[in-house]
Amino acid sequence: MKKTRVNEVLDRLERMGLEQMIITDANSIFYLTGIWVDAGERLVALYLGRHRDDCFFVNNMFTLPPNPGVKTVRFSDTDPYLQMLADCTDHAKPLGVDKNMPARFLLPLMSMGCGTEYVDASICVDGARAVKDEEEMEAMRRISAINDRAMAEFKALLKEGVTEREVSNQIKEIYQRLGADDLSFPPSVCFGSNAAIGHYRCGDVALKRGDCILLDVGCKKDSYCADMTRTFFCGEVSDEEHRRVYELVLQANRAAEAIIKPGVRFCDIDAAARKVIEDAGYGDKFTHRLGHFIGIEVHDYGDVSSANQETARPGNIFSIEPGIYLEGNVGVRIEDLVLVTGDGCEILNSYSKELEIV
Amino acid sequence: MKKTRVNEVLDRLERMGLEQMIITDANSIFYLTGIWVDAGERLVALYLGRHRDDCFFVNNMFTLPPNPGVKTVRFSDTDPYLQMLADCTDHAKPLGVDKNMPARFLLPLMSMGCGTEYVDASICVDGARAVKDEEEMEAMRRISAINDRAMAEFKALLKEGVTEREVSNQIKEIYQRLGADDLSFPPSVCFGSNAAIGHYRCGDVALKRGDCILLDVGCKKDSYCADMTRTFFCGEVSDEEHRRVYELVLQANRAAEAIIKPGVRFCDIDAAARKVIEDAGYGDKFTHRLGHFIGIEVHDYGDVSSANQETARPGNIFSIEPGIYLEGNVGVRIEDLVLVTGDGCEILNSYSKELEIV
Repeated sequence: MKKTRVNEVLDRLERMGLEQMIITDANSIFYLTGIWVDAGERLVALYLGRHRDDCFFVNNMFTLPPNPGVKTVRFSDTDPYLQMLADCTDHAKPLGVDKNMPARFLLPLMSMGCGTEYVDASICVDGARAVKDEEEMEAMRRISAINDRAMAEFKALLKEGVTEREVSNQIKEIYQRLGADDLSFPPSVCFGSNAAIGHYRCGDVALKRGDCILLDVGCKKDSYCADMTRTFFCGEVSDEEHRRVYELVLQANRAAEAIIKPGVRFCDIDAAARKVIEDAGYGDKFTHRLGHFIGIEVHDYGDVSSANQETARPGNIFSIEPGIYLEGNVGVRIEDLVLVTGDGCEILNSYSKELEIV
Repeated sequence: MKKTRVNEVLDRLERMGLEQMIITDANSIFYLTGIWVDAGERLVALYLGRHRDDCFFVNNMFTLPPNPGVKTVRFSDTDPYLQMLADCTDHAKPLGVDKNMPARFLLPLMSMGCGTEYVDASICVDGARAVKDEEEMEAMRRISAINDRAMAEFKALLKEGVTEREVSNQIKEIYQRLGADDLSFPPSVCFGSNAAIGHYRCGDVALKRGDCILLDVGCKKDSYCADMTRTFFCGEVSDEEHRRVYELVLQANRAAEAIIKPGVRFCDIDAAARKVIEDAGYGDKFTHRLGHFIGIEVHDYGDVSSANQETARPGNIFSIEPGIYLEGNVGVRIEDLVLVTGDGCEILNSYSKELEIV
C-alpha cells in the first residue's frame, strides 16, 4: 500500500465532502497499492475509508504478494462478493465510486444500500495521479530514455521500399531488447500522405523518396508509459512547403516547452504553440489539443488544451505534440514528454528534433 | 443496423419486462449496428426502444458510414450529450443498461431520471450474441481456417534453441500474411514446464529436446475471433507419462466433442471430458472449465463448465479445451472451436490433434 498516495486521495475526498470510496479501476488500484491485478470481468475493489479500515477485495484466482500492506478479503466466484464489499462500507454516509465502475457492480451495490448517495469521485484519484512523486518521475525518465534509444533504431529501418507494416512489426521486439516490457499503445508508422490521417496506425504502403515518415511510438516498463513522435523525410525534402511545415511544427513545439513552469495555465501553453502555427496560416491544419497527461495510462486524466484553465504544478507530466496535417500531402508532428519541475520543466525526451533525412 | 438482431434483443427485453435499453459496450454496438466505434473514454450509445425510435449517439470525432440505418445523434465534447441521451428515453418506464456501462455515464443518467428504475439487462444482448447467425458462422469458419493454416507455420518455427519470445514475436506477422487483421489475444508460447503455468504468455527460455510446446493462439478478422491450442513435443517424448497425459487430453477433447448437439447441457459436455481425466487419476490437474463462448470477443458471454446447466442451441460457438498440468514438468492442452448445428456439431478447426514431434 502506498500510504502517502492513499492519504492524498482521502484528503481530496474530504474536500468533496466524502469519507469513503470504492475503486475498481485496475490502474488506480495499482497506483494506490503497487499491485497489478488484471481481473478481466471479475471484481477487484479497493475500499478507502477515512474512519474505517481500508480493504482490498481480490478473487482467490489472482495471486497477491505476501504482505500487501492492507487488509485483504479473498473470495471465489461462488461467494456473495458484492454483499461482502457492501458490508464494509458506512451505509449512513455518501459513497464515492470511480468513473469506470461498471453497472454490473454499481447497480447491485446501490440496491444493497451501501451509501446514502453515490458520487463519481474519480477526480480525487485522478488529481493525485496527475502529480507524480519521485518514484514515478524516475520510472518516466527510465522509460523515456528507452524510447529515445528505440527511435534511433526505428530510424535505421527506414529504407526506400520498406512497408509501414514491416517497420511496425519490428517495434515491439526492439523495445523489449532495449529493456521495455511491452508497447504502451499500437505504434503509428505513417508514410507520405498517410501521416495526415488522424489515428492512422499502418498499412502495406512502401516507403518512397520524398515521403515524410511520422512515427508515434511508445513502450511500457514497470507499468509506466512512454510516448514520443518524430517525423523524418525519405531521401530528400521534395517540396519547400514540407520543410516550412516541419520548421513551424518544431518552432511550435519549442515555443510551448519554453514557457512551461509551475503556475502557467495549460490553455496558455496550448496557445503558445497554436499561435506559431496560426500566424503562419495553418491554424485549421492543427486539428487537436496540444497534449495529454501520461503515467500509468498513456492518456492519464488531464490535458493541455484551450479548454483547460488549470495551472501546471511540479510533478505534472504531459505530452507536447503540435502537428500540421495537409490532407493527401504531408503530416508532421513532433512530440516530447515534459515534467514540470520546481522552477521550469525537464524535457524527458532527448532524441533530436532537427529535420533528418533518411 | 442489423434489424433481426435488434428485434431479438427487444423480444428478450420484453420477456424481462423491459421496453427500452441503453447500450454503451462497443462490442454489443457493433453486433447490433455493424459499425465499430472505438471511442475510448468518450460516449457512444445505442438506445433501443420497443415503442420509440432506436437512436445512435456518436461523438462528431468518429466517422460513420453514409447510411447507418438508424437515427443518429452527433455531438461534440462541449455538448450536453448525456442530457441529449436522457431526453430520448421514456422516463416513465424502467430502463435496461448494459453491464459495462461506466459510472461516469450511469450516475448522471440516473440523476436525470431517465427511467423509473435501472436494470442490468446485458443478458438480453449477450443471449442474442450467443446464437450466431449465418453471417457470423461464416466469419468464424473463415477465421478458424486461417488459424489452422497459421498453426502449421508456427510449428515450422519450432527448432531446438529458438526462444518462446522469438516464436511469439513472429505470430502476428504470419497471421497478417494469411489474411487476418490482428491477434485476438496475446499468444501463449510455452516450452517445457512453462506449459503447466496458468496464463503464461512467453519468456526467454530456449526450446530443448524433450520439451513439450504448448501454443494457445488466435487471430481476428472482420471483428470475429479465433482461438486454438495445440501441444507438440521437441525431438522426442522423453517420458512415458508425457505421452499418457497427451493421449488422455486428446481422448477428453474427443469425448466432449462427440456428445455436442442441441439439447445437451453444458455441464454434461464438461463432465464428459472431465471424466476421462478424473478416471485416470489426473482430475485435480485439470484446473479450469472446459470452454468458453467466443465471437466478437474471445470470451463472449457463456461457458462450458460444471456450473452451467443451460443446454446447447444451434448457432452456439464455444471452445473445447481440456488440459492436464503437472507443475514443474509438463502441460498439455488441446483446444478446438465448435459450432452447434441442427443435429450435432461442426468442429471449426481441422489442424491435426495427433501427437506430433517437431
